Amino acid sequence: MTLSLPPELLSRFAALVSPQDVLDEDAAAPRLVEPRGLFRGRGLVIQPRTVEQVAAVVRLAAETGVRIVPQGGNTGLVGGQTPDQSGAQIVLSTARLNRIREVDADENVMVVEAGVTLAAAQEAAREADRFFPLSLGSEGSCTIGGNIATNAGGVGVVAYGNTRDLVLGLEAVLPDGRIWNGLRRLRKDNTGYDLKQLFIGSEGTLGVVTAAVLKLFPAPRDLATAFVGLPSAEAALELFRLVRQRAGSALTGCELMPRIGIDFTLRHMLGARDPLDAPHPWYLLIELSSPVEGGLTGRLEDILAEAMEADLLSDAVIAASVEQTAAFWRIRMGMSEVQSREGGSIKHDVSVPLARVADFISEASSAVEAFLPGARVVAFGHLGDGNIHFNVSQPLGADKAEYLKAWAAMNEVVHAVVHAYGGSIAAEHGVGRLKRDLLPSVKSDVELDVMRTIKQALDPQGLFNPGVILD
Amino acid sequence: MTLSLPPELLSRFAALVSPQDVLDEDAAAPRLVEPRGLFRGRGLVIQPRTVEQVAAVVRLAAETGVRIVPQGGNTGLVGGQTPDQSGAQIVLSTARLNRIREVDADENVMVVEAGVTLAAAQEAAREADRFFPLSLGSEGSCTIGGNIATNAGGVGVVAYGNTRDLVLGLEAVLPDGRIWNGLRRLRKDNTGYDLKQLFIGSEGTLGVVTAAVLKLFPAPRDLATAFVGLPSAEAALELFRLVRQRAGSALTGCELMPRIGIDFTLRHMLGARDPLDAPHPWYLLIELSSPVEGGLTGRLEDILAEAMEADLLSDAVIAASVEQTAAFWRIRMGMSEVQSREGGSIKHDVSVPLARVADFISEASSAVEAFLPGARVVAFGHLGDGNIHFNVSQPLGADKAEYLKAWAAMNEVVHAVVHAYGGSIAAEHGVGRLKRDLLPSVKSDVELDVMRTIKQALDPQGLFNPGVILD
Repeated sequence: MTLSLPPELLSRFAALVSPQDVLDEDAAAPRLVEPRGLFRGRGLVIQPRTVEQVAAVVRLAAETGVRIVPQGGNTGLVGGQTPDQSGAQIVLSTARLNRIREVDADENVMVVEAGVTLAAAQEAAREADRFFPLSLGSEGSCTIGGNIATNAGGVGVVAYGNTRDLVLGLEAVLPDGRIWNGLRRLRKDNTGYDLKQLFIGSEGTLGVVTAAVLKLFPAPRDLATAFVGLPSAEAALELFRLVRQRAGSALTGCELMPRIGIDFTLRHMLGARDPLDAPHPWYLLIELSSPVEGGLTGRLEDILAEAMEADLLSDAVIAASVEQTAAFWRIRMGMSEVQSREGGSIKHDVSVPLARVADFISEASSAVEAFLPGARVVAFGHLGDGNIHFNVSQPLGADKAEYLKAWAAMNEVVHAVVHAYGGSIAAEHGVGRLKRDLLPSVKSDVELDVMRTIKQALDPQGLFNPGVILD
Repeated sequence: MTLSLPPELLSRFAALVSPQDVLDEDAAAPRLVEPRGLFRGRGLVIQPRTVEQVAAVVRLAAETGVRIVPQGGNTGLVGGQTPDQSGAQIVLSTARLNRIREVDADENVMVVEAGVTLAAAQEAAREADRFFPLSLGSEGSCTIGGNIATNAGGVGVVAYGNTRDLVLGLEAVLPDGRIWNGLRRLRKDNTGYDLKQLFIGSEGTLGVVTAAVLKLFPAPRDLATAFVGLPSAEAALELFRLVRQRAGSALTGCELMPRIGIDFTLRHMLGARDPLDAPHPWYLLIELSSPVEGGLTGRLEDILAEAMEADLLSDAVIAASVEQTAAFWRIRMGMSEVQSREGGSIKHDVSVPLARVADFISEASSAVEAFLPGARVVAFGHLGDGNIHFNVSQPLGADKAEYLKAWAAMNEVVHAVVHAYGGSIAAEHGVGRLKRDLLPSVKSDVELDVMRTIKQALDPQGLFNPGVILD
């Protein structure tokens, strides 16, 4: 791999970490391509083990004008973690900043380094009889640093909020190489601008997060999970509202799926079974949980019975075992994966005001059908947050590469509907490189200008993740 | 009132709003002094009625280099809303930006202008059978704009978070007079830097918030409130943990009060009665509430019985009527007021990690007693957030003016303990002018420098609230 940086300079960077923390070409290869293969780049990959090593790398970068691409688990879906083709960028991987520094169950906080995987963070909480509620499909390999950089969402947002809501403090290395220690663990602290908010969701463009203080919650003691068949997306929305009203804060999951997604699952997921006897146009996976013991299954039964009376649902089953609960969630979590087995999929990670979700799905589906007859909409996701993964599989028998050429045009069709509904075209995955050029169509000049002003102020050399979010 | 700005310039500002929206000397007077009289200033007070008028005022200020002090309900306790003595600053009051633009119960959001009082916002939510959970002593006169500018806390934080957690979108006028319309109402939106976070808690130094989209919650349907006597602050902390464990998210209030505060209440609050028969060293006001109907009183009884068994509490009474509930809360909400009747009070709005609250109170009280024998510590506040109003009343018979001269030295004594406990010296009231010079003692140079960089980038002329937060 020939990189466009002078070998002496590469050696200076490499010398800042242990030799085994500079990846050779083979080891680096998977780090240089985004999971869907949409973005491929070149560059030296180094994996510091301490915040001081990170700072040293960044200081040298600042001194020599070398650009840095921070990378966590490399699971992002918008190319925010991938260097460009120039070979002149350095991938600063947080993979070896992987210590759980502290779990304080008494205080309900834990301090973890950026490279700790989400699953490891969840597990550390569990071991202390606590709960860290962030949960997403890639949790086995995505990292806390990446979750913070992208303000990750996932399936727990309806009850616990986005990543932003789960962070009490941060440690970061700024674009000039200084370490900012903001590892506070206070629930209230109004001592000036809340700097951590700037880093959360900035996708590595303002520096690199190296550690965080995360909120923990009481471990759930009771859990009830239902798989519900519904006649329409409107009915799903009504049912969501009913459950929220009846269950209050015990509603901790509410995931929407369409029939076509279940069809794909049955076709491609080994051992998958349809939880319900007959097919239904729409499905909700509903989870109630509570740290206070008792009675959730009965409560969920009552709510579903009430919904059945009101003709909101067609059929429902409540998980009778841990295995069945896991099977329900496997269907939901595999929705993206099974779709990939059906050929090309053009994706939209959008949100709209909750009340408009059903109308949005209907109108956007019609628009897609008019744009490309036979294209198969698979709209699923976090109903309670108004966040739909509006993914469109290729028509049966179409050529995948040919189909994917319609990506930008399809985006335009769908995003126009999102825009008309007052929604967001980047609800939880971020902007990255993939949606950067779309931002001017959804942000005012004033807002983009303030964003540029902040970027310029904190990273005047433009060293951090150039081309991500802003041009 | 002679102001140091040229009369022609003052006229130009005045001409931007209706004549009745420029306050004359008498009307302006109460706007120019902070509630405790710690800060007094001079300046023209104007009250625009629309965001366009605000923008026009700010544009003229930017063009002529005139400094602006945004002001809401003028209830802040750190001087952040008070102009200086020069007479060269303009107070931009949001008092007449007081429309509730929309309440969308279906979507659980409302759009309110900055000058809407917190009580009016709560009431608008209530009329739509919804709940806006921000609640603080000054809610009758403080405004949503001020709540946002200071990231206000209050008694609902333990369940619903600070103001920051309740804001979905903002509209603001930037220091150059441009209007930023960020009135989004989405639960998930990762399209670049989350600019609203910068304005929340910036105390009017980065521009002026003119409107906000606020989150609403289901209206509580059941409520149980207890007044509990305890042997120690440690026991209060233990009881808080027990209630949180047993009641989960139904715990929506947990306020700590010391016996001396009850003594002051009985002495100075008309009609106040001690809810318990005998005196106790400490008290907790515990509130359970839930949007799901039923059973909270029984649950609270069970929890208190369990706590009694465990020797955590000495006595307790559960409110048997709406009137009794109100009487309990009146005692808590009047704690600051009754203290003012006991002469000078030197205040500390601090937070520490929850587990350390009791130790902090004990150590800080000893430090105060050593520093000024006879000084009477009244430590009360939001136990669940680790946020204590550590206020110190003058010794009996002391001279008030003389006592208040010890303000800075007393602060130093108490803040040293806060610092040792990893706490914050400005937990929920903000920094303002009062604590500005203390910031360098609790913030790293790096953090202060980043704050200055942001201020400089967004307000290069230093027009907005100079001297607040940063020097």
